[in-house]
Amino acid sequence: MKFSPLVEKLINDLQIMPGIGPKSAQRIAFYLLDHNRDGALKLGETLTEAMNNISYCPKCRSYSDGEECEICRDAGRQDSGIICVVESPADVLAIEQTGEYNGTYFVLHGHLSPIEGIGPGELGLDELARLLDTGRYHEIILATNPTVEGDTTAHYIAHMAGRRNVVATRIARGIPVGGELESIDGSTIMRSLAGRSPL
Amino acid sequence: MKFSPLVEKLINDLQIMPGIGPKSAQRIAFYLLDHNRDGALKLGETLTEAMNNISYCPKCRSYSDGEECEICRDAGRQDSGIICVVESPADVLAIEQTGEYNGTYFVLHGHLSPIEGIGPGELGLDELARLLDTGRYHEIILATNPTVEGDTTAHYIAHMAGRRNVVATRIARGIPVGGELESIDGSTIMRSLAGRSPL
Repeated sequence: MKFSPLVEKLINDLQIMPGIGPKSAQRIAFYLLDHNRDGALKLGETLTEAMNNISYCPKCRSYSDGEECEICRDAGRQDSGIICVVESPADVLAIEQTGEYNGTYFVLHGHLSPIEGIGPGELGLDELARLLDTGRYHEIILATNPTVEGDTTAHYIAHMAGRRNVVATRIARGIPVGGELESIDGSTIMRSLAGRSPL
Repeated sequence: MKFSPLVEKLINDLQIMPGIGPKSAQRIAFYLLDHNRDGALKLGETLTEAMNNISYCPKCRSYSDGEECEICRDAGRQDSGIICVVESPADVLAIEQTGEYNGTYFVLHGHLSPIEGIGPGELGLDELARLLDTGRYHEIILATNPTVEGDTTAHYIAHMAGRRNVVATRIARGIPVGGELESIDGSTIMRSLAGRSPL
């Protein structure tokens, strides 16, 4: 038994969102239809507006409305001479929340993955090369995720930086603050030992 | 630090969906922006189309595109003389999946809840009264949820049916098939004992 085809279509289309399966999509569809049609109409408009108008900052590839983003317009941060490479805009938020970093960013929107057809072009590495060529940066921090793909991407970019005499550094891997040694995996503990520092 | 205001708006608007908090909304927004703008544009259109065009079947109040739904158009089911009252269209789906029920439905889209301002009018009980007045039904099955509100609603409707000489029945409460007695709450076991049947 099916409801009207439009209900089916709504339930199907909601499933393009990550983490939303058939059951959640049905729950969301019924909730919106019964309790929040105005909100859903507004969401529909916002989706259209956002997908059509949000682009990447021409300098750091973070989200912006076409112009340079807030961080790239900040002269103090540009003058720091440090650029931090991350995989996603969410990582920019995470680092900004610490309040400890005062350089600029470069967002890859992914990592090198030949299997998925993601090469240096897809990650904007030619733009990054052009930035490094300006001679404005003395250090590039590689803050891609500590996964196989993130490490590979970091090594690739470190090589790029080396040829341009920019120092490439990698964020530290080790025991998370508040973590318990006994519940941490072996390779993290190995990294943590290898990266030990004098007290 | 904020991205463009449109990104913020998208993350905010996504949170009207039940079960989607700030973190999930951000993940969904970034995923759609980076990996599926076409899908998101289609979802935007579908939301608008669905909210503007999906209405309730004039007979059973299940979802339809304005006309009577598939079940209400089925003469065999209309002739059964049995109507089943449920709280939500999802309950219709659940009962239909058993393939054991051959009557019609009436969907309340909620339950009586004076605190939330939901009275008989909001649940369409005047329409249900009109259906019962036709004399076409000899039994009304009350399949609202076995909660305090569901029980109250069932009693209210049973009273309506009684005045019209329609037999009102309530779905059985008891141990779920495959359930283990030791892990079932006391009130369900009490119900299960009270509703015992000869073997």
